[in-house]
Amino acid sequence: MVVEAKSKVEPGEGLFIVYTGNGKGKTTAALGILVRAWGQGMRTCMFQFIKQPEQQNGEHKAAEALGIPIIALGDGCTRGRMDLALGKALALRQWAACKQAIQGGAYDVLVLDEITLAIREGWIEAQEVVGAVLARPAGMHVVITGRYADPALLARADLVTEMGQVKHPYHDRGLTVQRGIDY
Amino acid sequence: MVVEAKSKVEPGEGLFIVYTGNGKGKTTAALGILVRAWGQGMRTCMFQFIKQPEQQNGEHKAAEALGIPIIALGDGCTRGRMDLALGKALALRQWAACKQAIQGGAYDVLVLDEITLAIREGWIEAQEVVGAVLARPAGMHVVITGRYADPALLARADLVTEMGQVKHPYHDRGLTVQRGIDY
Repeated sequence: MVVEAKSKVEPGEGLFIVYTGNGKGKTTAALGILVRAWGQGMRTCMFQFIKQPEQQNGEHKAAEALGIPIIALGDGCTRGRMDLALGKALALRQWAACKQAIQGGAYDVLVLDEITLAIREGWIEAQEVVGAVLARPAGMHVVITGRYADPALLARADLVTEMGQVKHPYHDRGLTVQRGIDY
Repeated sequence: MVVEAKSKVEPGEGLFIVYTGNGKGKTTAALGILVRAWGQGMRTCMFQFIKQPEQQNGEHKAAEALGIPIIALGDGCTRGRMDLALGKALALRQWAACKQAIQGGAYDVLVLDEITLAIREGWIEAQEVVGAVLARPAGMHVVITGRYADPALLARADLVTEMGQVKHPYHDRGLTVQRGIDY
């Protein structure tokens, strides 16, 4: 099969990747990308929205061992029990840090984990995120994860995978989260 | 929302997980699970079908640094240029190693990467894989990745995510694979 290049994006220019959908595996795949890139000697970092900094999960422990920064700044969830004003303030502060990291060019691969939820809440403008990602330094990969990815993100991303929920044990079977799998 | 438990599977019993679909992120998410579980002090291992042992990708280097075994045994691809008899022989040998690892119980999380392709080729029986996975020691998680997952796998898995290809830069845009993202 002959594949025709349809854009100016060339190998080595860096990809804009979105993992979205209701299925499990989005943050997990982003973590896999960070680890794989780390194995290639690349500089990587994950910014987590929504999640609380004090959550020390498996990914945080492994990333610490590898020297991959995972920076969480959130209030635990978007809707329901949280303080929405606090949630917005934390999201804006986290987004400011992301913008600095994108512009600074100190990383080869950046993950913005669950920024989609902060966009959905109206805390951050989708167009501002798209603009910052498209203006990133040459060669930088940016990975955005989370449900409900804004169409503006999907329209400009190079790679979009929708993790579809075929079977989800926590919804379908009433299971709780599993150590080592979910956290 | 009240969720009713529909099966006997309980937290801590170990999940049977399938990541399938044509989109990118299946092996990557499995790698993320291994790393997360490693961070929780769990014993993890990945068996790779199809891929050649001499491919030293980013995930192999990172896993080596963490002490996570990634054991590849394949001939590079399924269809096209490969020697099919050799492919089958390697797949059967790899499957024998997987069965031993499942029965041995020395790991908390096992990944069988792209075993779906070996099943699709007819080299390994889907029912035999399902039987071995269902007979695993209590508490062990088994993750199967790859396109074209057999319905027998999907029927018995606890968690199935279909990675759907929304945009794929290598197909849509003629890009080649990217260091740190794909390998």
